[in-house]
Amino acid sequence: MVPKLDVPSLLGHLNLFAQLDEKSLARLAERSQQVRVPRHAFVFHRGDPASGLYVVAVGRVKLSIPAANGQEKVIEFFGSGQAFGEAMMFIEQPYMVQAQALEDCLLLWVSKQDVLAVIDRQPAFARSLLTGMAARLHTLMQDIEMVSLHSASQRLIHYLLNLPCESGLLTLPVNKNVVASKLGLTPETLSRLLHQFSDAGIITVRGRKVTLHSRDALQAREASPMTH
Amino acid sequence: MVPKLDVPSLLGHLNLFAQLDEKSLARLAERSQQVRVPRHAFVFHRGDPASGLYVVAVGRVKLSIPAANGQEKVIEFFGSGQAFGEAMMFIEQPYMVQAQALEDCLLLWVSKQDVLAVIDRQPAFARSLLTGMAARLHTLMQDIEMVSLHSASQRLIHYLLNLPCESGLLTLPVNKNVVASKLGLTPETLSRLLHQFSDAGIITVRGRKVTLHSRDALQAREASPMTH
Repeated sequence: MVPKLDVPSLLGHLNLFAQLDEKSLARLAERSQQVRVPRHAFVFHRGDPASGLYVVAVGRVKLSIPAANGQEKVIEFFGSGQAFGEAMMFIEQPYMVQAQALEDCLLLWVSKQDVLAVIDRQPAFARSLLTGMAARLHTLMQDIEMVSLHSASQRLIHYLLNLPCESGLLTLPVNKNVVASKLGLTPETLSRLLHQFSDAGIITVRGRKVTLHSRDALQAREASPMTH
Repeated sequence: MVPKLDVPSLLGHLNLFAQLDEKSLARLAERSQQVRVPRHAFVFHRGDPASGLYVVAVGRVKLSIPAANGQEKVIEFFGSGQAFGEAMMFIEQPYMVQAQALEDCLLLWVSKQDVLAVIDRQPAFARSLLTGMAARLHTLMQDIEMVSLHSASQRLIHYLLNLPCESGLLTLPVNKNVVASKLGLTPETLSRLLHQFSDAGIITVRGRKVTLHSRDALQAREASPMTH
């Protein structure tokens, strides 16, 4: 038997709702809908109407922009306690991204009407939403900077140098195709660059495990002129 | 003599503040600062602390991400009545963009503290801010889609087809270097593509004026496979 979910307590633990009073939480919980999405299934597609926001209770969701040729551009990942899908709701535009479950997910869905009602009663909630959206803007701008102003190799080096690293060992958090998409590279370019760095003795790659032999050598390459 | 600016009435005419009551408007006007920025001067630089929001009263402002080599990636333009600079304020991060006056500008600056005070008193203002930030997110995602998933020529065609066009005549709203940056192209690539379309008899280019001889031919090229 699946244990019954204590929705008010779950919502209360999420950053977004942390400042709501008990009454508002209970009301929101009562009016929210639980949505189960199996692994690999879509929460919504591009073009779907945006009529509320989703909160991840359990699992992980990938937001991406689909392309005609089956490619996609990964925008962001959302895990337990994070909200997504709210921005388009405010401008009454259909989604231009798609949301896909990376694992079996349990989501809560809150309608636009209910979100607006909470904004009107609790300014702290409006501030949380604004903070969340501002953080999203910041990430997107970093993405744009990455893709527009840096060479393919600079992007990869910057990415590698910012992963958690323990005594020279780091692990790619997602598979190489997703890393490539996140960096705006084709999988072939990513693979070519990793080979180049390996051949130069700077790194060794085994699947998702990367051994970093010289942080300095990698940093030196980042500073070198653009070679797209 | 410069006529005295009626700040409350000016603020009241801006979308962002349209739903505020008179008392809030008067208070906000009183606490706002007028900032005059001559053409080409910077309103703020990347790395500056974000401690309030700007509203354009007169003039036009360009937001861009600077790059080490003097390049820049244009993010957006703001004209009379539009607010900018507010997102980073909410996440207490320094600006990652720079803001430059394209004409002599008169701006109003409202401190973070005053913005938050209005949010707490007037939920409608929070909604306006959320709507503005959501629209910004939407534009940035379109930018990312453009740069990541479409070929250089698709980007340019899409851009041209979406400019206001009167009996086949359209005008680039900014100079070609800025158009190139907006589309994530080098000026050389933009120039090469314009020549290609001219040679094919699809357009004629004179400075910023573009004559569109065949919308259909341009559309047909947009659908053709990626040729970066």
